[in-house]
Amino acid sequence: MSPVRCDSVIVRFGGEIGIKGEWTRRAYEKLLLRNIKKTLDYHRIIYGEIIRERGRFYIKTGMARETAEKLTRVFGVSSASPAIETSSKLEEIIRKGVQLARETFPAETRFAVRCRRTGKHEYSSMDVCRRLGEQILEALKERNLKVDLKKPEIVVNVEIRGERAFLFSETLTGVGGFPLGAQPKLVGLLSGGVDSPVACWLVMKRGCPVTPIYFDNTPFTDETTTERALETAKALFEWAAGFPHIIYVVPHGGNLQIFREKCPEALTCILCKRMMYRVAERIAEREEAEGIVTGESIGEQASQTLQNLRVLDAAVNKCPVHRPLIGFNKQETVDLAKKIGTYEVSIRKAKSCTAVPAKPATRARLKDVEAAEKNLDVEKMVKETLEKTEILEL
Amino acid sequence: MSPVRCDSVIVRFGGEIGIKGEWTRRAYEKLLLRNIKKTLDYHRIIYGEIIRERGRFYIKTGMARETAEKLTRVFGVSSASPAIETSSKLEEIIRKGVQLARETFPAETRFAVRCRRTGKHEYSSMDVCRRLGEQILEALKERNLKVDLKKPEIVVNVEIRGERAFLFSETLTGVGGFPLGAQPKLVGLLSGGVDSPVACWLVMKRGCPVTPIYFDNTPFTDETTTERALETAKALFEWAAGFPHIIYVVPHGGNLQIFREKCPEALTCILCKRMMYRVAERIAEREEAEGIVTGESIGEQASQTLQNLRVLDAAVNKCPVHRPLIGFNKQETVDLAKKIGTYEVSIRKAKSCTAVPAKPATRARLKDVEAAEKNLDVEKMVKETLEKTEILEL
Repeated sequence: MSPVRCDSVIVRFGGEIGIKGEWTRRAYEKLLLRNIKKTLDYHRIIYGEIIRERGRFYIKTGMARETAEKLTRVFGVSSASPAIETSSKLEEIIRKGVQLARETFPAETRFAVRCRRTGKHEYSSMDVCRRLGEQILEALKERNLKVDLKKPEIVVNVEIRGERAFLFSETLTGVGGFPLGAQPKLVGLLSGGVDSPVACWLVMKRGCPVTPIYFDNTPFTDETTTERALETAKALFEWAAGFPHIIYVVPHGGNLQIFREKCPEALTCILCKRMMYRVAERIAEREEAEGIVTGESIGEQASQTLQNLRVLDAAVNKCPVHRPLIGFNKQETVDLAKKIGTYEVSIRKAKSCTAVPAKPATRARLKDVEAAEKNLDVEKMVKETLEKTEILEL
Repeated sequence: MSPVRCDSVIVRFGGEIGIKGEWTRRAYEKLLLRNIKKTLDYHRIIYGEIIRERGRFYIKTGMARETAEKLTRVFGVSSASPAIETSSKLEEIIRKGVQLARETFPAETRFAVRCRRTGKHEYSSMDVCRRLGEQILEALKERNLKVDLKKPEIVVNVEIRGERAFLFSETLTGVGGFPLGAQPKLVGLLSGGVDSPVACWLVMKRGCPVTPIYFDNTPFTDETTTERALETAKALFEWAAGFPHIIYVVPHGGNLQIFREKCPEALTCILCKRMMYRVAERIAEREEAEGIVTGESIGEQASQTLQNLRVLDAAVNKCPVHRPLIGFNKQETVDLAKKIGTYEVSIRKAKSCTAVPAKPATRARLKDVEAAEKNLDVEKMVKETLEKTEILEL
């Protein structure tokens, strides 16, 4: 007897997509299906037919395990299970179920059979559970298995849909949220540190494609800092198959030089960030993005006090600034960075910005900052910075 | 022999407080100590001496377990352990350590002894571990215990500080962050639903005291909605001992009535929220708060598209709007609400707002919204609303 092999994947996307109104739900499902296909293509996974059901896709593929793993990293997917497809004939379900148990159950296993069913059949869901359970016990007597409906170690799930049935015993958890593209685009300030990619990822999880912007502070940083940022963007784009993988690289060192020459040193970081926000706002307009996303968290750095964030916000007026990490502890951000795959890249050795003053202002006042900017031609700086900006495709 | 009883609590606050500069760290420690004392008083817990060490407080109390539990719910505390204090004499440490093991180790336990030490002693930390481990094995021979340094089931920790020593085997995890008051105040829109208290809690975790504002939509809601909001505020204030427990209650039903009479129905929710933001901004000024915190998450409700959030932001110009849940999935918010104790109150039966239109605008355009507001005397509405606003002490 040849081994049973998973030949399908059940992809679930109930969650928040499921509770939307009919029209929105359909649009989101369509978008999710597109993103799933793009992700499989991106990872060179061969697949065949995809059956669409309410809250689920059934994907035919010989690379079921790998497919399930990759699809747990598609926004909107709540979980995925490698599965075995059979017809909905009870004998066949039982035959495959017994075979699955034979190949995967260790001795002494406490197991349960569960069944969900739509369509008309000559048997009830309860029949499936009872019959398959009995047959597994009978066929594998020597293993001393036990049925345990309350705390099973392994569950054999049977999902029957009309004339098809799917058996599976493993469910991989996804990240949920909405399919990328369900919401409009944002631009994201991406430094390459731990925080900013996590901030971008969080709004991507809610459906917003993000176009990252990297500010190159050379000569106050160097190519190690730039490389790290580009690698971080690549790690982030692993979550965005089928979307443009571009990043704006903005030369910002000249601006920093000007701030250091003409403004109070304590304000350097604030002036730097306000300029970043302004440039980002222009890029957002160009990209038709609905706002800016940043990695700031209250109090994480001296520059990130509430008072300073307020002064930063005052630099832009057309674009909202979204800060998904505003209430995160550092450790929470680190944990998430590890989970999404940006951490390892973010902690690579790179030159820290040497323009940071010894004592940065922690409670800057808007009027002082505006007074400092009066010595500069801010509008000209923004314009010249944009003219030297490059778009890289990663 | 009388049972060993925990008579102290070790409170740890390393984390993000520990990496701050000297001046900030001291200020935060002082604030944390104040908040700890207020919390103990609030829960009527008797305590004695408090020893301050780098990254730790040692609190003398006969209610050690309860103290440790309550203090894990003080922002800035990373963990707390009920402990037994002894002198730093090795014999006494061993005597108490053996007694602790006798009273708490089940048979067959795999255990380890760990030691941290500052000060001068006649023994090394390693001596403590080895000697105490041997003595426990010897004294409790009949229990068939085993030393297991890699994967112990129970760890006896010995923390020696000069002439004192503390023994403990249990560590309760706190929520970390910064002590409340480390950052300036925010005002928070608190509806009484699941999201808004979690949003407020997240910025409180980063050190910002929050003054909640409830908008009373009667007659479109009723007293059940108001009661729920007040109870939610109370649950949130459990985290803010020693800070004012006040809430602004703003009569908002009249405004809704005007929107419904004079503006396109699809815009009702947007107009409602913009008015809330405006009123909140005035209250923030009055409270000297640095911004507004809200529970919005991208795409969670029809009104929370990126485009709509942008239109909302445009209603305020002096105050930043912080949205800690912007990147949260609903389930993540629910999980956190359960953990912090606001969930049960938030899901009580309450009347939902009946002013919500059947088809709320999901992509409102600012110019349409501003055109609708031109038919109203917005400034007068804000002023009259504020005049009827009450401050309740909970």
